[in-house]
Amino acid sequence: MTERKYLIGVDIGGTNLRVALADMKGKILARTSSTTVGVRDAQLIVAKIRQCADQLLQDAGIPREAITAIGAGAPGVTNVETGVVIATSYLLGWRDVPLKAMLEEALSVPSAVDNDVNLAALGESFFGAAAGVPNFVFLAVGTGLGAGIVLQDQLFQGAAWTAGEVGYMLVPGVPQDPVELGQPGALESVIGGEGLRLQWLSLWNPRETKLPENLTATQIFDGAVAGDPLANSVLDRTAHALACAIFNMTLVLNTPLFVLGGSVGLHPALRDRTQKVVDAHARLLRPEIVLSSLGSDAQLMGAIRLAQLITQR
Amino acid sequence: MTERKYLIGVDIGGTNLRVALADMKGKILARTSSTTVGVRDAQLIVAKIRQCADQLLQDAGIPREAITAIGAGAPGVTNVETGVVIATSYLLGWRDVPLKAMLEEALSVPSAVDNDVNLAALGESFFGAAAGVPNFVFLAVGTGLGAGIVLQDQLFQGAAWTAGEVGYMLVPGVPQDPVELGQPGALESVIGGEGLRLQWLSLWNPRETKLPENLTATQIFDGAVAGDPLANSVLDRTAHALACAIFNMTLVLNTPLFVLGGSVGLHPALRDRTQKVVDAHARLLRPEIVLSSLGSDAQLMGAIRLAQLITQR
Repeated sequence: MTERKYLIGVDIGGTNLRVALADMKGKILARTSSTTVGVRDAQLIVAKIRQCADQLLQDAGIPREAITAIGAGAPGVTNVETGVVIATSYLLGWRDVPLKAMLEEALSVPSAVDNDVNLAALGESFFGAAAGVPNFVFLAVGTGLGAGIVLQDQLFQGAAWTAGEVGYMLVPGVPQDPVELGQPGALESVIGGEGLRLQWLSLWNPRETKLPENLTATQIFDGAVAGDPLANSVLDRTAHALACAIFNMTLVLNTPLFVLGGSVGLHPALRDRTQKVVDAHARLLRPEIVLSSLGSDAQLMGAIRLAQLITQR
Repeated sequence: MTERKYLIGVDIGGTNLRVALADMKGKILARTSSTTVGVRDAQLIVAKIRQCADQLLQDAGIPREAITAIGAGAPGVTNVETGVVIATSYLLGWRDVPLKAMLEEALSVPSAVDNDVNLAALGESFFGAAAGVPNFVFLAVGTGLGAGIVLQDQLFQGAAWTAGEVGYMLVPGVPQDPVELGQPGALESVIGGEGLRLQWLSLWNPRETKLPENLTATQIFDGAVAGDPLANSVLDRTAHALACAIFNMTLVLNTPLFVLGGSVGLHPALRDRTQKVVDAHARLLRPEIVLSSLGSDAQLMGAIRLAQLITQR
């Protein structure tokens, strides 16, 4: 019998699985990761989670009985009441996966699940840039775009668990043709990393830029900061579309804070220009835009927080 | 001492004040109204409310002691906890009016207040087109545009009581210059009654339409239904902008139902065309758009519901 208790947080991504062992206050004691490239089957992923957890426990000399709860997130629409991942993006291709039940069977510990963006919001809410702010939106700008909404200190998932699917938002300057399910959304195609890469390819012209033809979103933003005119126009367009989305969300939700995360969202130049456009439109209320303080750990910290919440019920 | 109990509902508008006497189930027993044109002072409006209420009670032979509660709404940002109307539009021009306290002093009865669009949503939620639907948005399309949001059977007012101020939303096709406070919002200028009247004036050309130069929004929509080409293009633009706003809101809030109210919003042709555009964009979820079933009584019924809620606390 051991007195000490521990939590496990799991971040299931399209390319990586990350597992952390934390104390009851949420402090990470040890972590490990495993690839999910080519691994789509949920049973295999849960087996990998169990291996990662067992390895962390073994290395720390902790028996599995000392684990109090597991929190986990996958990149998809998740019913947090039943613990079923209803649908993920093409990277995993899950449909109706009972992740909570599978984790509980594999590890014999109470678990809770939510989608990765909601978990990132939860992480920022408790451990990060939104600590002490009861109403805010976390915007994950990576390959795609999604929002995690916190209202009155609670995650707001919506009636069918799809609140915050803002990648499809229609703002000035985005393509207006209806988008097929599974394709990048209208706003995503302007703001997301993959959309930015494609924009740069289509605009690239050696007379207008000295930068190379193949660039990532953050490389384009770096080029803009360094003064490249074409990169500047792309960054301006991105900031304008993101600002419209943030402005629209603050009109609907009245949230005074937006936290930017994800590989694209963490670029300071995007934050700065977006804030300027928002300020030009804001009247009664000026929403503040800040960078995630947890960075790529936001989801994992949210998973740990989710596990912590189980123990506090 | 009387056994029977009654409620009073009050709808304060920019041009009209409406007061209703209802039984405890919310059924209107008698109603009256009074003009508010040229009457901006809150004390004078409260005095008018008292006169209207006293007249209704006298006509019905009911002593004032039989009134259990009063619910009231004004067209402006309202702190429902303190009962203070923080700011209304230019029609009333109120700033920080303690309406709840003033009503309680004038009538010696517990009261509750909220803004008119939220009250209309509350009315539709309990007595109207959204009865039994826990998550929906009421869109008031009149001179301007506003949204009342109901989440999990509760009005959602936002952290600073301005949730749903969607008249400023930025969607494809709206003017993109920042709007000054107090001026019509970007979306409002395309969808709202005043914006539609001005659009028609600026577009009007006897070679393109047989309709007159001065038309109201509903007359323009009637002209579109009758086949007028210019009126049709205006209705199409309005429906497209409204559809974008509804689509954006359903992405953020995951609400499956939108109820259209207000003098412009109640036109069936606007609903039908807006639903078509939304359907073209909707993928996972197709929000349904319906007309308000309470019509111009939505706010008044919401005020009565607010009074009813006081008695159920």
